[in-house]
Amino acid sequence: MIYITRRENFNSAHKLSRPEWSDEKNVEVFGKCANTNWHGHNFNLFVTVKGIPSAETGFVIDLKVLSSIIKENIIEKLDHKNLNLDVDFMKGIMPSTENLAIKIWDELEPLLKVHDCQLHSIRLHETENNSVEYFGQ
Amino acid sequence: MIYITRRENFNSAHKLSRPEWSDEKNVEVFGKCANTNWHGHNFNLFVTVKGIPSAETGFVIDLKVLSSIIKENIIEKLDHKNLNLDVDFMKGIMPSTENLAIKIWDELEPLLKVHDCQLHSIRLHETENNSVEYFGQ
Amino acid sequence: MIYITRRENFNSAHKLSRPEWSDEKNVEVFGKCANTNWHGHNFNLFVTVKGIPSAETGFVIDLKVLSSIIKENIIEKLDHKNLNLDVDFMKGIMPSTENLAIKIWDELEPLLKVHDCQLHSIRLHETENNSVEYFGQ
Amino acid sequence: MIYITRRENFNSAHKLSRPEWSDEKNVEVFGKCANTNWHGHNFNLFVTVKGIPSAETGFVIDLKVLSSIIKENIIEKLDHKNLNLDVDFMKGIMPSTENLAIKIWDELEPLLKVHDCQLHSIRLHETENNSVEYFGQ
Amino acid sequence: MIYITRRENFNSAHKLSRPEWSDEKNVEVFGKCANTNWHGHNFNLFVTVKGIPSAETGFVIDLKVLSSIIKENIIEKLDHKNLNLDVDFMKGIMPSTENLAIKIWDELEPLLKVHDCQLHSIRLHETENNSVEYFGQ
Amino acid sequence: MIYITRRENFNSAHKLSRPEWSDEKNVEVFGKCANTNWHGHNFNLFVTVKGIPSAETGFVIDLKVLSSIIKENIIEKLDHKNLNLDVDFMKGIMPSTENLAIKIWDELEPLLKVHDCQLHSIRLHETENNSVEYFGQ
Repeated sequence: MIYITRRENFNSAHKLSRPEWSDEKNVEVFGKCANTNWHGHNFNLFVTVKGIPSAETGFVIDLKVLSSIIKENIIEKLDHKNLNLDVDFMKGIMPSTENLAIKIWDELEPLLKVHDCQLHSIRLHETENNSVEYFGQ
Repeated sequence: MIYITRRENFNSAHKLSRPEWSDEKNVEVFGKCANTNWHGHNFNLFVTVKGIPSAETGFVIDLKVLSSIIKENIIEKLDHKNLNLDVDFMKGIMPSTENLAIKIWDELEPLLKVHDCQLHSIRLHETENNSVEYFGQ
Repeated sequence: MIYITRRENFNSAHKLSRPEWSDEKNVEVFGKCANTNWHGHNFNLFVTVKGIPSAETGFVIDLKVLSSIIKENIIEKLDHKNLNLDVDFMKGIMPSTENLAIKIWDELEPLLKVHDCQLHSIRLHETENNSVEYFGQ
Repeated sequence: MIYITRRENFNSAHKLSRPEWSDEKNVEVFGKCANTNWHGHNFNLFVTVKGIPSAETGFVIDLKVLSSIIKENIIEKLDHKNLNLDVDFMKGIMPSTENLAIKIWDELEPLLKVHDCQLHSIRLHETENNSVEYFGQ
Repeated sequence: MIYITRRENFNSAHKLSRPEWSDEKNVEVFGKCANTNWHGHNFNLFVTVKGIPSAETGFVIDLKVLSSIIKENIIEKLDHKNLNLDVDFMKGIMPSTENLAIKIWDELEPLLKVHDCQLHSIRLHETENNSVEYFGQ
Repeated sequence: MIYITRRENFNSAHKLSRPEWSDEKNVEVFGKCANTNWHGHNFNLFVTVKGIPSAETGFVIDLKVLSSIIKENIIEKLDHKNLNLDVDFMKGIMPSTENLAIKIWDELEPLLKVHDCQLHSIRLHETENNSVEYFGQ
């Protein structure tokens, strides 16, 4: 079993706030992340899949194929977008890095089953100091 | 003459679009950077000042002082903000990385004259692939 | 279950040597790390905790809280200090990166139990080529 | 149990193609990686071993020893070489990053048993976007 | 005047050797870089142009345009290629990093004159330890 | 004229304090950098030389030669040492990053004149946020 990781990037706006809370409560809980007019990040996404390398190609999965799946299903929807307003699979979800990683997993996991490999983890870096990782439950 | 550089970071939302242009024209000129609902970046700011090291301290400028000047006058105003809407010194200015670097220079240059050093350059990285540098004309 | 990681840094002096050994034996075993007058490093510390994201905030733990816990209990004690002489929880301990990671775990683990999350690992980079990771036994 | 990681680098040429396939088929399967006249990479190799720190030295393994074992047995054979033509342990093996990581494991694993530690994983970065990890089956 | 920099990458094979010299002399002069069967690198290319930001767009040059010019004229010709054998503008030229940077300048400089900006420098990183920069004479 | 840069690293202890000042005054001026028992850093040193590439080799200077000169004359003296106590060319000098860069220039400049190239600059990174550059006055 080999684990293979592809990095892709996206640049998005978001804010952390609950519409049913007052501005004061949102700032109290979320601090500057609650800024009314949004803020944003360069996100680094690391997708790891696992499987047995093919005897013919030496590949667990062709990285061009993996990159295309990620770009078409995730990056196209997140890059240069607003995570609160523009993304179908984030509708009604608080766009914390944790929740974003879980939702990216939910989008990618069924698409990768078709290939002879399995999604192993989603690692998502919001800044050079903050990151999350999700292994699917 | 020694050149000394301090890095600070800020995470902001922005968009590139001219209000007097149609959405179509804005997308034609600015591409996905014109996304109506904003996008964002982790900006890396490198401020370089030059001067003669003090015989007593070996410092051109105390980096704690330089860092405080940058944080109070620049980072406080840009971090977790919207560059089009929230920043006094960017009002009415297209928030391209180029213009942002020039305006940061204009804010910092008079503040650093007070100390025995001079602002040399503002280098601003929007992504790991894109950066600008400004030397004050 | 989501894993969330916070990076903090500290810059410290240390040396590897046993006082009951001769200088020759210390140099034989520890090489240049035994230099009598110390040497030092920029350490990068990655603290990973795991838990379920809150339905309200989307957070496993507020990263500002995690960062404060690490800074008050670890960084304050290690940064710009001598790991052999200045640190209460390293007294009498050989300050190898391995032992330092274990002691940081021992300090942080009880403090994080209070929150709805668990310490998962301490990863400590001494240089860009050398790092250790500890999972609590 | 502590996990300790040493990074080493090597710069090599390779190509992905099967001699029994036509050029067209090789390009169809391997894309630009099949370029007849080779291409190359700066590989980053991360070797992780695990064990109990020595009570005397605080070391799982002396990193100078680990580095020497990797350099003599792996880097000497791969650095500034052609992975398809010049490397004894890659003869007849498709030099995908996956297969290269497996073969590096096979070379290092018996050499590390002699010491009081165990090989835990081989992580190999081909570019900043592509990497693999192998845990020995 | 603002300086704007775009990074692009390419992965290539090369060797340093003069065909009219013996193998011994080539190894004596070029060391392991003379390996008969090639070696390779991940090159990082930084192209800096300078100009006045447009009053309308805030751009010195649209980075999508700059990136396209570099990709079509440089990256397409160098990426996954052999610098000694496959590249028209390197024919008969020793592919040292120095010479490669000069030839990239010679290719790009006339193409950028058409736009309202000027090529300022070509910076080329062969490894994380080795790089060159060329300012056009 | 081509500029070529070699990176080397060293890990050292130091402190900033003037023996003729009281502890209080040293802490007031130098903050935590005055810690009595030292602290330390991983320093990154970038040495840039300039010259014309040789028609035969394509080299401004053989990077193996440049690396050896830096290692023998600078790294050997600074790595795993105390910058206040152990270094001949820093005796009596406040070991600020500024002063250290100037003294490294003074050591290297005469040694590089012998070769067909000139020292252009010394860039020294103390942390990822702080660096200095010196061009020899």
